[in-house]
Amino acid sequence: MNAPRVQLLLTGNELMTGDIVDSNSAMIAEQLKELGLEITRKVTIADNLTLLTNEINQLAEQADILIINGGLGPTVDDLTAQALADAMQIELTEHVKALAHLTAWCQKRGASLNKPNLKQTILPQGCDIIPNRQGSAVGIKVRHLQCDIYCTPGVPHELKTMLNEQIKADITKKIPATLFTDVTRLQVFGLGESSVQKMLDEQLPDWPKDIELGFRAGMPLLEVKLTTNNHQAYQHKALWQQKLSQVLGDHIIAQIDAKPQSLAKHVLNQLIDKGLTITIAESCTGGLIASMLTREAGASQAFAAGFVTYSNAMKTKLLTVPASLIQTHGAVSEATVIAMAKGALSQSGADFVIAVSGVAGPDGGSKEKPIGTVWLAWGTINNLKTVCLLMPLTRSLFQQYVASIGLDLIRRELINSTQTPQYVIDKEYN
Amino acid sequence: MNAPRVQLLLTGNELMTGDIVDSNSAMIAEQLKELGLEITRKVTIADNLTLLTNEINQLAEQADILIINGGLGPTVDDLTAQALADAMQIELTEHVKALAHLTAWCQKRGASLNKPNLKQTILPQGCDIIPNRQGSAVGIKVRHLQCDIYCTPGVPHELKTMLNEQIKADITKKIPATLFTDVTRLQVFGLGESSVQKMLDEQLPDWPKDIELGFRAGMPLLEVKLTTNNHQAYQHKALWQQKLSQVLGDHIIAQIDAKPQSLAKHVLNQLIDKGLTITIAESCTGGLIASMLTREAGASQAFAAGFVTYSNAMKTKLLTVPASLIQTHGAVSEATVIAMAKGALSQSGADFVIAVSGVAGPDGGSKEKPIGTVWLAWGTINNLKTVCLLMPLTRSLFQQYVASIGLDLIRRELINSTQTPQYVIDKEYN
Repeated sequence: MNAPRVQLLLTGNELMTGDIVDSNSAMIAEQLKELGLEITRKVTIADNLTLLTNEINQLAEQADILIINGGLGPTVDDLTAQALADAMQIELTEHVKALAHLTAWCQKRGASLNKPNLKQTILPQGCDIIPNRQGSAVGIKVRHLQCDIYCTPGVPHELKTMLNEQIKADITKKIPATLFTDVTRLQVFGLGESSVQKMLDEQLPDWPKDIELGFRAGMPLLEVKLTTNNHQAYQHKALWQQKLSQVLGDHIIAQIDAKPQSLAKHVLNQLIDKGLTITIAESCTGGLIASMLTREAGASQAFAAGFVTYSNAMKTKLLTVPASLIQTHGAVSEATVIAMAKGALSQSGADFVIAVSGVAGPDGGSKEKPIGTVWLAWGTINNLKTVCLLMPLTRSLFQQYVASIGLDLIRRELINSTQTPQYVIDKEYN
Repeated sequence: MNAPRVQLLLTGNELMTGDIVDSNSAMIAEQLKELGLEITRKVTIADNLTLLTNEINQLAEQADILIINGGLGPTVDDLTAQALADAMQIELTEHVKALAHLTAWCQKRGASLNKPNLKQTILPQGCDIIPNRQGSAVGIKVRHLQCDIYCTPGVPHELKTMLNEQIKADITKKIPATLFTDVTRLQVFGLGESSVQKMLDEQLPDWPKDIELGFRAGMPLLEVKLTTNNHQAYQHKALWQQKLSQVLGDHIIAQIDAKPQSLAKHVLNQLIDKGLTITIAESCTGGLIASMLTREAGASQAFAAGFVTYSNAMKTKLLTVPASLIQTHGAVSEATVIAMAKGALSQSGADFVIAVSGVAGPDGGSKEKPIGTVWLAWGTINNLKTVCLLMPLTRSLFQQYVASIGLDLIRRELINSTQTPQYVIDKEYN
């Protein structure tokens, strides 16, 4: 018995015109890869009923599983249900479960059912729906030309949840037990794909061919994946994973079990576990570090206040950094970030602090302090450390990377790391 | 004479596995759009010679122009030349011009010709090459089944240059002079796709069919596109755009000329133009508003300080909000956001302020103040306004949407808007 042939159909003018870059299909591919399935072909077409109908028939003939993404929304250019009905030569009709979902959805939000929304309940007769707990549009499941067709929403987080909670379990039933895949994913911070690859080439030149290494760069974290496709390879995977861990050291944040956690979440968890709190004094990151922390639920257990002191005067007024000190050393200096850190600790009463001041650009660089220069101070009042880094990135990437480094330095502090981090800016961050 | 039908074939395992997200096809689409051409269909397949060969034949039969991207490199999984030769049933042979290009390329770099590289000079007999001044692989141009086929490199900047300098000029010759496309894009805040659609259905039911409406939801802004494809439709487009503007009112932020600006950038530009400054007092948005402002270059001209007062004690200590006031009214109340706003204005000396306090969830809701409740205060010391909104969204979307509403309220203040905004949460924000 072979693996089912999976194909993908993406719909949407916006995908054809270049207005948006398709990231959904990569997400689908990644999810299915965890089941050991590969997508061998995907077709993307504009919002045109005839094209869409023909394509569904063509794909259903060639595939065992067809995932259709997009076109489930309320507007006139959302054509998936109609095209599916046309392809199957059945009628569209009001679907009781879809209507119940939409009604509950609107009630929960105090919104009234409107006509565009109701379009989302008109589905191919006799089809199954796939629950969507995050959006108004349900997914559709049908069998056509001996192919299982899943219609999914275009909104990325709805798609992701639907895949995770519904579709993957359904597809798993169709996969022969002989197909073996084991995937381990590691979260890495401070190194890019080419740095990791280089370290492995140099330090582990005999890396075995049957443990496939994969990388996925996502700002600020890099995901390193170890995949084995048979039991034999799986036997020595733990050993090689251990060797890899030694090479990468504390650049590895965690092994990802189900949902990856953000760097901020790791820091918050450690702080909360130890009953400690943190405050942030930000200049060049302008509130980003505070925002990364407070994006996480439960942040209030470890975070009470952040200071965005963007001007020199405000560093003096809000964080009691002496004006003379800034005048002597400059706003981007070790003396200034130490004074900012102390001021923030004293004002907030927190245990830990991150203080940041740098030149984000595109203006403001000088010969001594070019764009990308940043000073960080971090730690506790009795153990403040500092570092100066140079990260010539675009403004936005500079801010994201500096904010992440601030959090990573605290993470290392909290795990009592004795290693010196080697933050390398690889091409994927340029 | 119709517009040529353009289709796209992308090759590469890495596109199928989710290891990389395809951005090349968006780039190709965008470039062709400038010629008034739309790609109606694109196919992506893995590196498999049989699949590739069949696909080339299928696509060439359906299209007038076929652009193939990827598979021109030196390695064994680069199969485009072979597949093209197989599809056309001709031989592969050493191409004199391709060899000359590669020889010059290597000489310029002081590199020697090696065997993998030489593979790039073995092309379908009789084909034309497309010069590549940035890489070792030349493009290929052939005519097959009455379709013009262009094979292009997968490296983005090589592809871009080849499109700009060679392929677009070639394709332009095939476009009839009567072809016409005009696109106007509007940035809208506070309304989703279905709300806009509903407003149009109700208030402009006779919207003309030849002015195509398109939507693109991106948090926090919605892009509304008006497209006309002939001169006749273009004649009345201005009139209908005006009617649309009346319906949407100040929910329209701007018409997008080239690169869209963020909401924060619009606010900053207006403040800077008027020589005014702003400060932010944030509880539930936790630094996000400050971060949105400081992400923009030049923010320091209008922004000097932000306060992230996440706990009640810090609202009192840093923003002088009386503890008794919080005790009486609660942290999420009109009285508290007014006091936060006044405190931030007084501490920072700024002209304008946004103060926010709400229940972001997932915990902390009550019957009176359920999750999603938020109070905002905004304006100047002599003209502070407040509003209470209920936005039952996930934590992260709640924060993004609330932060954007704060900025939008200031934007409306700065353009002296007299309209009351109707912020509607559509499904795309759920």
